[in-house]
Amino acid sequence: MPRLEPYKKTLDYSYCLGVFPSLKLLEYRPSAAMRLLLHSEGMDSEGVGRLRERCAALGVREETADKILRRESRKDNCFAALVFGKYEAALDPQRPHVVLHHISDSGNLGTIIRACLGFGIRDIAIIRPCVDAFEPHTLRASMGAFFAVNARMYASFEDYRRAYPEHTLFPFMLDGAIPLDEAVRGRPPLYALVFGNEASGLPPEFARMGQSVFIPQGEEIDSLNLAVAVSVGVYAFTR
Amino acid sequence: MPRLEPYKKTLDYSYCLGVFPSLKLLEYRPSAAMRLLLHSEGMDSEGVGRLRERCAALGVREETADKILRRESRKDNCFAALVFGKYEAALDPQRPHVVLHHISDSGNLGTIIRACLGFGIRDIAIIRPCVDAFEPHTLRASMGAFFAVNARMYASFEDYRRAYPEHTLFPFMLDGAIPLDEAVRGRPPLYALVFGNEASGLPPEFARMGQSVFIPQGEEIDSLNLAVAVSVGVYAFTR
Repeated sequence: MPRLEPYKKTLDYSYCLGVFPSLKLLEYRPSAAMRLLLHSEGMDSEGVGRLRERCAALGVREETADKILRRESRKDNCFAALVFGKYEAALDPQRPHVVLHHISDSGNLGTIIRACLGFGIRDIAIIRPCVDAFEPHTLRASMGAFFAVNARMYASFEDYRRAYPEHTLFPFMLDGAIPLDEAVRGRPPLYALVFGNEASGLPPEFARMGQSVFIPQGEEIDSLNLAVAVSVGVYAFTR
Repeated sequence: MPRLEPYKKTLDYSYCLGVFPSLKLLEYRPSAAMRLLLHSEGMDSEGVGRLRERCAALGVREETADKILRRESRKDNCFAALVFGKYEAALDPQRPHVVLHHISDSGNLGTIIRACLGFGIRDIAIIRPCVDAFEPHTLRASMGAFFAVNARMYASFEDYRRAYPEHTLFPFMLDGAIPLDEAVRGRPPLYALVFGNEASGLPPEFARMGQSVFIPQGEEIDSLNLAVAVSVGVYAFTR
């Protein structure tokens, strides 16, 4: 078995930290699981027991790896993690999408994936350059929701669009043409909600694609936090 | 002038880090500003120039304080901060409130304050034990929105309730009695949206106060991130 390296983008595997996210991984992507890492002080926990059982049933080998758990989680109380192979998910062409253009914060990405799944959006395109969706912190912030959705990274927006040309685009922009409520009333069955970078938003050319939308907000704030904007948009569109 | 100590809860002053939040402080709470701290490498920035002008007009003295800026921000590129005296804001009895019960994450609190202000809620009660609302990280996550709202900490929910007995309570709970949409349709002019701790939510006794509400969400997630839940609730109530 090769030595497990500190996580970096270029590795073909990643670490799913924590009992709850690891159970989610085994539920939705069992074939990606490679090795179960356990902390010697956490063996008595009920969640760890469940993880070990499922891994044994799937033939995923376990090992004690206190040091690696501490190194990857930067915490002393991370009792379990799954090493898993990175995979390519395919977006469902028949369902609505969320598209994240140049998202840069891993905590935001995890929170957004969790909210999308909560509101029933299961297909998420992430346009590069962007935060690494397989980064352990993203997976953890998603509470394992990452494994239940189809999240896929694209080299450019055009690449995504070529693959899914049928979705009506709704770019969310501070100077969008119509307010969220109006966009929701006119929504077709197949749509893609498009959001830009935390600091800079979407480039101006998106205003000419599909139907641009704004979330009504007071002038006293510059903008909403990205995870808040996506969550409100997705909530309104999926009610 | 006394030596500026590393931030802690018990100090009667705090640090507002960054040019943009500091401008907000001067706009909404000018009398709280005590000292302007500047980084020797940031003097040429336009924002710093504006800050210095306003501080001069208000009689707030400035000083170069590279070390303190680095210590408090834990970054090398924080070019300005305001030292300001902690103050007690009073909630407006005639406007709707958001009540945060035992919130524990400073980033969440800042994001929530920013979203509340964006959607027009300007009065926020925070029930102890909770994260310190004056902590520099909270102020920064709020992007200075903290200074534009009335945010006040209470020793207990009863203390808050005694001060504002007229607001109809809407406790948000995973097992709330009615869905968000229905609650919104029946809302009175004066209401308080009540949210619990990130990990544990509201204690069960809140189900018997006012009208408990749930945000419809798929069973595949445990719960929404707290900042997401508050933002969606506030968006729906204020449309």
